[in-house]
Formats: sequence, structure tokens, C-alpha cells
Amino acid sequence: MPRYRLLIEYDGGPFKGWQSQANGASVQTALQEAVEAFSGQKVQVFGAGRTDTGVHATGQAAHIDLEKDWPARTVREAINANLTRLPVVVIEAALADPEFHARFSAVGRRYLYRVLNREAPPALDRGRVFWVRKPLDAAAMHEAAQALVGLHDFTTFRDAQCQAKSPVKTLDLARVWREGDEVRLEFAARSFLHRQVRSMTGTLVQVGLGRWRVGDVAEALAAADRTRCGTVAPPQGLYLTKVEY
Amino acid sequence: MPRYRLLIEYDGGPFKGWQSQANGASVQTALQEAVEAFSGQKVQVFGAGRTDTGVHATGQAAHIDLEKDWPARTVREAINANLTRLPVVVIEAALADPEFHARFSAVGRRYLYRVLNREAPPALDRGRVFWVRKPLDAAAMHEAAQALVGLHDFTTFRDAQCQAKSPVKTLDLARVWREGDEVRLEFAARSFLHRQVRSMTGTLVQVGLGRWRVGDVAEALAAADRTRCGTVAPPQGLYLTKVEY
Repeated sequence: MPRYRLLIEYDGGPFKGWQSQANGASVQTALQEAVEAFSGQKVQVFGAGRTDTGVHATGQAAHIDLEKDWPARTVREAINANLTRLPVVVIEAALADPEFHARFSAVGRRYLYRVLNREAPPALDRGRVFWVRKPLDAAAMHEAAQALVGLHDFTTFRDAQCQAKSPVKTLDLARVWREGDEVRLEFAARSFLHRQVRSMTGTLVQVGLGRWRVGDVAEALAAADRTRCGTVAPPQGLYLTKVEY
Repeated sequence: MPRYRLLIEYDGGPFKGWQSQANGASVQTALQEAVEAFSGQKVQVFGAGRTDTGVHATGQAAHIDLEKDWPARTVREAINANLTRLPVVVIEAALADPEFHARFSAVGRRYLYRVLNREAPPALDRGRVFWVRKPLDAAAMHEAAQALVGLHDFTTFRDAQCQAKSPVKTLDLARVWREGDEVRLEFAARSFLHRQVRSMTGTLVQVGLGRWRVGDVAEALAAADRTRCGTVAPPQGLYLTKVEY
């Protein structure tokens, strides 16, 4: 039973997140239905990360086991042919080692957060960016973000619903920079807690607006107290861009 | 009666182009209705360029005359407040000289064309790019495009419906480059003929695919014969990015 590794892009807008659930369309279910449509097989699509409602991906990873030994290219084409009505696409499919697991084999995840920072709301990027009207100080945000890099108890930046056993994680990279009228944030870690990226981003936006001082972020982190989180940035600016193996 | 200059962004997808017409929503009509909703005035919104159905803009320019002397900021905010259901936004509004005319004062127009060049179709950028599956040679496209720069009879790259008196135009810039899995084309000129950018792009794509040689573009241009145009690229990859005054 060959295992295939998939690289997946999706617009999170129409979905109730990655994970299959009773109410509302999920990316996982969309993919499972597309696999069934061409292979006749009911499969489980294992994803590397469970993105929330409205969160996008340009580099989600997943794996599936198929009964038949299809060429990887056929798998990609056949899934995409059955997904034309939904904004989900398999960018690449490859035969994987039977030991490969999209979630457990992953050694790194990378997220991008896009903030549109101008007085006018988005037209072309509606649903693809978080619109912040007042000017952000990207340099201050970057400086404050450096306090988050390293091994920390991230309780402050963890959703109350988070099911991870430990709030201790290592953040490998936090970068904030301006690109025209966008402020972009990038974070990389082996893994993240639930809503950690959106919690860190929302808090750094407070710094960018001048409502928080740069040093307040380090203090909020050290407090290991969820009530010290600034705000949680909305889902539509967030992109899972890369899963590393 | 103060005149206001507007900088406008829109997703061309839901519109039958810029210009008001009997059938289907236009960007111009959407703006005119938004102006009327806040000012009570039936105005004509004069645009710098008439984009076709499905063509986008990140930098369309326009002007309007209002009876009342509104602050420019209020004009922008009030139009945007009445456009929330449509993907059109006024990025900037400014008081303009009474002699200023969005179309006739323009001394330069700039377009970007985005080609998604990978085997998988777009998910996030559906309706925002032209998907070309086979690998494009961007360097060959750039080389071929240089034959188009300068003063030429552009009959080959002009739509049969074009109403311009003369097919002779000066193309100031033609640039083709790769950015990840996108090939981007940029063109600048004082003005363009109808569908000139899409005609040039479609033809350059033939070069990128290796179906045309680099030199064929110069020959097709010199022929001044519409039947020698390669193909016309579809509207969804095209963006009006800048109007210069």
C-alpha cells in the first residue's frame, strides 16, 4: 500500500479549517472526497498542521495511503481534477517512505502573517490580509519579536483550548518587516501551540501601534499568563507556508 | 465646484470592466453609486483607462467634480463606506486642479501581467493569474519583448474593436522576469491600444513555450497585421498598476 506525500495550497476563506468536522466544509474532507472520487477509496488525509477557520496555506503537507500503485503525478492530477470547485490544490505529490508521517515526521513549520497597513481597506486582498489602518512601526515590532525567539513557556500566547501537553516550545525565528503598504511577520518553529502565531502577531501589532512598549512583550511572555496576551490577530492574514522534514 | 483625484484598487472579477454599460456591473457605476450615496449627487467618474472585463487595478486613477467642498479624506472614507459589498476601494483622494483630467492629463500608464507557471492550477490566486502549465523561458520572453519597445505601428497587437485613430504608439518599457513560480511582465507607455498588453503578453508566452522563436515577435510586429498576433492572454492576469501625471 504505497504512501504519498502531498504539498497543498488553499484559500482558507470558505473552510471551517483544516480538520474534518460535523459542521461545515473542511480542507481535509475536501481532499478526502477528491481522493475517493478518483480512487474509489475512503482514505484519511493526514495533515502536518491543523489550520483554523479562515487560515490559508501555500505549503501545507499531508500524506495518504492508496491501495493501488498510482504514479505520483496521476495522484496529483486526479485530486486536482476533482477539486475544481474549491480553492484547494495539490501542488506536488511524491511517493513517500512507509515510515513518513506528515505530522510526526515534520521537524519545522513556517508561517507568514500579512497585515495591510494603510488607511484604505483591501479590495484585491479582501479575506487575505488583516487590515490595520493606523501606521505600524515594523522596526519596533521586529525588535519586540526577538524576545520570543528561543525556548520559552508560551502560555501567554496559547489559546485556552490548546491541547498540547506542554506550553514550552522553541521559537526558531521571528521576523517583522515592511513591504510597501504591508507589514509581514514570519515565524518558524518545530511546532506551535494553538493560535500561537495569531496571539504573538496580535501582541506585536500593539507594539507597532505604540500601545505597548517593546519591552512589554518580554514581560508578557515571562508572566506565562494568558490574560497578558495583547490581542489575537484574525485568521485571514495567516498562511502556513512551509513544513520541513 | 471642487475636483477630486482618486487612486483606485479593484478586483476585476465581478465586473464587466471599468466602463458603465447596460448589461452587468462596472467599476465606474459602482463608484458613481457610492458617490451619489454620500453626496446625493449624480456624478460621472472619469477614469484614466478603461480596463476590460476581469482586468484588475492596483493603481487606477479617476476624477470627480463635487458640488460641496468636502475634505478629500471624507470623500475617500465616504466612498469606501458605500462600497463594502464590492471589491473596489479608493486608496487615496486629493483635491485636484480644475484643469486636471484623469484621462487626458495622464502621461504614462503601467501594467503588470501575472502568469502562474507551474503544473498545478492556482488555489489562492484563482482569478488573479493566468495559469500556464508548461515551463516558460522568461529570459527568452524578455529578449523578444525588447523588439516591442520604442515607436511602432502596433496593428499586430491591437484588438479589431480598437477605436484609437492611429495604431502607432511608443512603448517605453517591456520587462519579463521570473519570481518563484510566477512569470511577470511589465509594460509602460503613455497610452496603449485596446488589448495591446494582453496581445503582447499572449504572443510572448508563445516564445516562452518555445513555439515561437525570439525573432518571430519582431517579424510579427513589422508585419503590422492582426492575424500575426500569437494569442491574446486572458484578462484575469492583468493589473493596471500606475497612471502617471
